[in-house]
Amino acid sequence: MGCCHHYQTVAEGCDSAFTVDTSRVTFGRGCLAEVGERARALGMTRVALFSDERLARLPFFQTVLQSLKAAGLDVVPYTHVHVEPTDQSILEAARFAAEARPDGYVSLGGGSVIDTCKGANLYATHPADFLAYVNAPVGEGRAVPGPLEPHIACPTTSGTGSEVTGITIFDLLSLGAKTGIASPRLRPTEALIDPDCTATLPSEVTAASGMDVLSHALESYTARPYVRRPAPARPSLRPMSQGANPWSDLGCREALRLMGQYLERAVTDAEDREAREQLMWASTLAGIAFGNAGVHAPHGMAYAVAGAVRDFRPSGYPQEEPLVPHGMAVIVNAPAVFRYTAEVSPERHLEAAQWLGADVRGATPGDAGEVLAGRVLQLMRAVGMPNGLSGVGYTEADVDTLTEGAFPQQRLLQNAPRDMSKPVLSGLFRQALRYW
Amino acid sequence: MGCCHHYQTVAEGCDSAFTVDTSRVTFGRGCLAEVGERARALGMTRVALFSDERLARLPFFQTVLQSLKAAGLDVVPYTHVHVEPTDQSILEAARFAAEARPDGYVSLGGGSVIDTCKGANLYATHPADFLAYVNAPVGEGRAVPGPLEPHIACPTTSGTGSEVTGITIFDLLSLGAKTGIASPRLRPTEALIDPDCTATLPSEVTAASGMDVLSHALESYTARPYVRRPAPARPSLRPMSQGANPWSDLGCREALRLMGQYLERAVTDAEDREAREQLMWASTLAGIAFGNAGVHAPHGMAYAVAGAVRDFRPSGYPQEEPLVPHGMAVIVNAPAVFRYTAEVSPERHLEAAQWLGADVRGATPGDAGEVLAGRVLQLMRAVGMPNGLSGVGYTEADVDTLTEGAFPQQRLLQNAPRDMSKPVLSGLFRQALRYW
Ligand SMILES: NC(=O)c1ccc[n+]([C@@H]2O[C@H](COP(=O)([O-])OP(=O)(O)OC[C@H]3O[C@@H](n4cnc5c(N)ncnc54)[C@H](O)[C@@H]3O)[C@@H](O)[C@H]2O)c1
Ligand SMILES: NC(=O)c1ccc[n+]([C@@H]2O[C@H](COP(=O)([O-])OP(=O)(O)OC[C@H]3O[C@@H](n4cnc5c(N)ncnc54)[C@H](O)[C@@H]3O)[C@@H](O)[C@H]2O)c1
Repeated sequence: MGCCHHYQTVAEGCDSAFTVDTSRVTFGRGCLAEVGERARALGMTRVALFSDERLARLPFFQTVLQSLKAAGLDVVPYTHVHVEPTDQSILEAARFAAEARPDGYVSLGGGSVIDTCKGANLYATHPADFLAYVNAPVGEGRAVPGPLEPHIACPTTSGTGSEVTGITIFDLLSLGAKTGIASPRLRPTEALIDPDCTATLPSEVTAASGMDVLSHALESYTARPYVRRPAPARPSLRPMSQGANPWSDLGCREALRLMGQYLERAVTDAEDREAREQLMWASTLAGIAFGNAGVHAPHGMAYAVAGAVRDFRPSGYPQEEPLVPHGMAVIVNAPAVFRYTAEVSPERHLEAAQWLGADVRGATPGDAGEVLAGRVLQLMRAVGMPNGLSGVGYTEADVDTLTEGAFPQQRLLQNAPRDMSKPVLSGLFRQALRYW
Repeated sequence: MGCCHHYQTVAEGCDSAFTVDTSRVTFGRGCLAEVGERARALGMTRVALFSDERLARLPFFQTVLQSLKAAGLDVVPYTHVHVEPTDQSILEAARFAAEARPDGYVSLGGGSVIDTCKGANLYATHPADFLAYVNAPVGEGRAVPGPLEPHIACPTTSGTGSEVTGITIFDLLSLGAKTGIASPRLRPTEALIDPDCTATLPSEVTAASGMDVLSHALESYTARPYVRRPAPARPSLRPMSQGANPWSDLGCREALRLMGQYLERAVTDAEDREAREQLMWASTLAGIAFGNAGVHAPHGMAYAVAGAVRDFRPSGYPQEEPLVPHGMAVIVNAPAVFRYTAEVSPERHLEAAQWLGADVRGATPGDAGEVLAGRVLQLMRAVGMPNGLSGVGYTEADVDTLTEGAFPQQRLLQNAPRDMSKPVLSGLFRQALRYW
């Protein structure tokens, strides 16, 4: 399968180049023990170690703590991260950081921990009103004024890819929807990715975070190509969400191949180390890809799905509060979206389905949306994902609320290959209510 | 085609993780004009602009100069780069830099220019005896003591990948062989890759530098896997030449696919913009891959082949002095080497041949070396490469000299998947004398 040539043609007034950037990445079993020496090499002397309460009781938290101490570093732990962070939980973490005055950060956890750590580093280093840096139109979208303190991110889920992206995501409680901050300055200095960390991951979290990976790869692969995005006034204004490009395509294809082959095995058998390792690698690749291409409608819609949650409490996750895990909130929209977007780039949608392991023999361009949606649905059912929005507690009556929550996510919606006006979004949410 | 699973098994006492790092990369037609704003964003105020005499007369040199000036930067040009640099030519460039006192570097050219610029930046920033930083055992292999000035590398060949690697290569005149310096500090801060630059590339240079790309990808793909390299005492001692790994594999496969499809077209028709663009992208990918995996015997042997040149003066290159272009010096060894190394990883060699467009139906593991060598030879003949070492002026009588020149390149030879003792090298040079 090759690249689609029409993707290379620059449209009138559009960008003709793409820029890629990523964190230094170390990947491999046992590499968590490298954290101390790496932190010291980055010049850290006093480290804020971020994690959440569940992770802080697991052995690899000790591995990190010991490694940092053995390297002669001061460590101040912060383990109050809120699973699915909010503006308030991030500000609380930033207050901790401002008082503790670390000169470096280490985060050990899933996206919730890594994103909270990015936010704390940002607001402790460059204090401002919370909305200052938040993506417009929800926030002011102000540029981060300078570098942050060095940050080594150690993911324990497979996963958000947050360890290699310049993005942090949270619930804006006042808005009742998720939103985020995007800046290359937020990208962790190093990612230390030890697949052994996922051995303790509940299968529900493996499934939901795996769906996030799947959708990162599918969305980046089908995103509006960079040569269809209006050229920036200056190169420094080229966004990280620059659209599908040959670099992100490469990571997406391999991530899709690995997800198609290993996701089900990794979810159903926690002892299947090979499958869990390959999933972790897929997660990293998809993170690098979407960090340079951007996701689109399934994620934009997910922000509303997660933000408007009423009483969904999935097993495998903390039970104190209702929540729709991020990967779940994303994937419930995906089949509806791909059925709609396939029309503009049927070959890409078919290719994606094929990398994911679908049988595409005899499929015509007109079948592309159905073939891809079908393969995604097959995987969703295999790993116990809910049956669309109704499976996480929504009904037809919620479609307007969801649409209003999703529409402000213009950074994401404009990265879709096809129009995402409010009527379109409402239609997609309606299609996403129930799939089988 | 998937990954070879046995590659994932960590051998006793060997490394279990790999680390990848690369420059920020911008790729696309016309992106050269971004250099001024990018240089300013990196904090440059006074830029040393490196190029060679031929390139300085071409229009894109003016593009770069104008862009830097338009950004309000002081520019001091240095266009005396020696094609195929030597220790002396690098020291001369370093003296220029030490006097000009730039706070940033821009290089516009092939590997000769980019490597000279790296060397000048190094010796002007951290002065030392020339041999101090040169790879052991030829030099002292001393670590570069601190960061260099920022450097934006703009390649005009496709290409060495030097714009994304931490390597600089030169003839050590006293030794009569090439050698190099390897340090992450040498890696350019940014790579600005404008495929339009290759429009003026003579077809002989497209062919030879294309062969360099081909061999970067083949060598990185067949290199000793990272899990077979003894674990470093500390993570910071993990070398850039860490062996084949899942990250480099990805770049290699795509580079091979593109080379198989576009190399011949790009060489035979300078007007074939699509082919030249794809070759440039393959060059970047192969550079990223080998910068994190390392090359092995064909490159190690090439250092001797280039260093011991007597009177070879290929067209398309400057005629004042004899030289064997780097890509040519590499590729003449490649078929002999792959015939020998295939035994340890026949699947990888067959896969590589297949990505490169060979018909591998019915091939057994025992055929792997021959199938891959056959495909490389087919491409060599298609683009006018010499018929082995005899084609660049060597005879049986030179085998000992070549072996003595290659053997000190232990950094590369140890990255080969199979023993590269002196008798083995002599045998390979003998096999490489003539292929058809
Ligand atoms: N920044 C980005 O680029 C980006 C991308 C995607 C998602 N996100 C965000 O990341 C968050 C979701 O992150 P996530 O899916 O990684 O889950 P998470 O961090 O919310 O963790 C989910 C649960 O799993 C537990 N857990 C994590 N690792 C474990 C392990 N190894 N063993 C046992 N339990 C473990 C946690 O304690 C938590 O209870 C969301 O807020 C989402 O918006 C960010
Ligand atoms: N640092 C690394 O990672 C690395 C890797 C591989 C090779 N190298 C080194 O790079 C050097 C070879 O570099 P190269 O193959 O890029 O060639 P080159 O830089 O030696 O250039 C070859 C010739 O082509 C001309 N040229 C270059 N671009 C042109 C253009 N666009 N239009 C017209 N003429 C052009 C040059 O002026 C020169 O005469 C060798 O010294 C080799 O050892 C370095």
